[in-house]
Amino acid sequence: MKPVSSPVSESDLGPRLAATASAIERLLERLLGTAPAEGEIARPERLVAAMRHGALAGGKRLRPFLTVETAGFFGVPREQALRAGAAVELLHCYSLVHDDLPAMDDDDLRRGRPTVHKAFDEATAILAGDALLTLAFDVLADPATHESGAVRAALVRALARASGLGGMVGGQMFDLAAEGRFEEARGALGEAEIRRLQAMKTGALLAASVEIGARLGGADAAALAALDAYGRALGATFQIADDILDVEADAAQMGKATAKDAEKGKATLIGALGLDGAKRERDRLSEAAVAALAGFGPEAEVLRAAARFAAQRKS
Amino acid sequence: MKPVSSPVSESDLGPRLAATASAIERLLERLLGTAPAEGEIARPERLVAAMRHGALAGGKRLRPFLTVETAGFFGVPREQALRAGAAVELLHCYSLVHDDLPAMDDDDLRRGRPTVHKAFDEATAILAGDALLTLAFDVLADPATHESGAVRAALVRALARASGLGGMVGGQMFDLAAEGRFEEARGALGEAEIRRLQAMKTGALLAASVEIGARLGGADAAALAALDAYGRALGATFQIADDILDVEADAAQMGKATAKDAEKGKATLIGALGLDGAKRERDRLSEAAVAALAGFGPEAEVLRAAARFAAQRKS
Repeated sequence: MKPVSSPVSESDLGPRLAATASAIERLLERLLGTAPAEGEIARPERLVAAMRHGALAGGKRLRPFLTVETAGFFGVPREQALRAGAAVELLHCYSLVHDDLPAMDDDDLRRGRPTVHKAFDEATAILAGDALLTLAFDVLADPATHESGAVRAALVRALARASGLGGMVGGQMFDLAAEGRFEEARGALGEAEIRRLQAMKTGALLAASVEIGARLGGADAAALAALDAYGRALGATFQIADDILDVEADAAQMGKATAKDAEKGKATLIGALGLDGAKRERDRLSEAAVAALAGFGPEAEVLRAAARFAAQRKS
Repeated sequence: MKPVSSPVSESDLGPRLAATASAIERLLERLLGTAPAEGEIARPERLVAAMRHGALAGGKRLRPFLTVETAGFFGVPREQALRAGAAVELLHCYSLVHDDLPAMDDDDLRRGRPTVHKAFDEATAILAGDALLTLAFDVLADPATHESGAVRAALVRALARASGLGGMVGGQMFDLAAEGRFEEARGALGEAEIRRLQAMKTGALLAASVEIGARLGGADAAALAALDAYGRALGATFQIADDILDVEADAAQMGKATAKDAEKGKATLIGALGLDGAKRERDRLSEAAVAALAGFGPEAEVLRAAARFAAQRKS
């Protein structure tokens, strides 16, 4: 399938993000209903409530936005793209629920609301995370997401690789090790190790969000490779920008305690490159993301705008 | 695809179980290597070690056995059947790792060895469970598991439905509620609620083990329905037999503290039916499982033997 043209200026980004976020919210509402789906026996109310607390908390819905926009320029029907985007978001939300747990990052608040284990309890939060993770794969494998079983299976693999032991979960493990949690892993990380950690912890899923959109659209190998380079550079941009915001923003602007990363001994590139070096690296990566899309036309303008937004955002 | 004949007598069950268990162990060894798979960035050693601790602990490997035997009588190549079986086992192992956590059942020992959070730590156990769950879906969606993408996607859905909020995870949630964990859920369960809880917590995955073997083999709707009835009756047989063993066996024979269910206030059918009533129900369910296979010939003899074994096992 060849990209179809739908030029977008950078100023359209905000409304487009908001429109996708709202469509994703509605779809997640439907997927997280209390009535059992076909093949299910019953859905415990408390578990559904905890999953909804963890998944319907709003947020920018950046990952589904990337999936939907990438799918869109291959002409994928919007309903399919939204379903795949919702699956990526379910997976993202599961990771937040588990990362917030007392045994992990021990966070009481997320986006100004109690985390799932605070609003419910620890056992419920563990199970809600497990169920969100499982639902993500169920949604991708559902025939409503794409007519081809081979494409659906490829989506499942893309998400599993980005999220499992060699992706997001593995990145979280490296992150805990970098905090000095385990005997064998003391000592500060070098720049290369921090880049690897961040590529796994946040980059892999952002790249997968783009990849899933491209695979829905039947992208060829060259387009997949270019979009993969874009996704990874975007993920790295996003992470450094986040680390810089953590240092710079005041508590009110971010809606959470700041400089928390430093307190917790989280590994960031600011330590390795200094604040100015980190800003240059953020801008370099954002430009690399834009450059990776050189082979595409105006239909990729919204993805280019997203890469610029990732570097410039203030919250 | 029509079932192919391969008659098996009941006395063959032990060696066949052992042969499949050993093949599954070898395959899990390979899947849980330290080298990153294609599309992965790196695998943290400690995480891999924890996953191996949770998944290579031996056991009967009953679920993959059901997958492999069901697939076998449809003539599915053994390597494909073993991969699907390994995925089911990975999912089973994830559920044990998370169920053992301090916030859940708080168990220190499993099959006589320290549980994952005791051998490692709580954060590592949560992540190891997450990664085992994710890997299960990755293995099913891999083209090496079946040549048809539609079949692979159907396997993913079968496993997701059995394990998610309307299956195993939901069952664990009902179980915690039955223990009186949450304010809103006090009070003893009735017989129907206990049956539903057990159908979700253990029955759904056993039924899915059979379903996945049947779907690998291209079973038609009638065969799928018969095998589903078999799988659900087998799962219920297995659970009641387990509850009876918990009451009757001495600590040495079971390799774990007994009557633990009663101490913890776990809901079992023994409370509702009495010990003799539970034994009659166990035997009735085992016969119902055998009866569900009436439309199959001698090729289903090993599944019939498994249903008898589930009722008669002593450990």
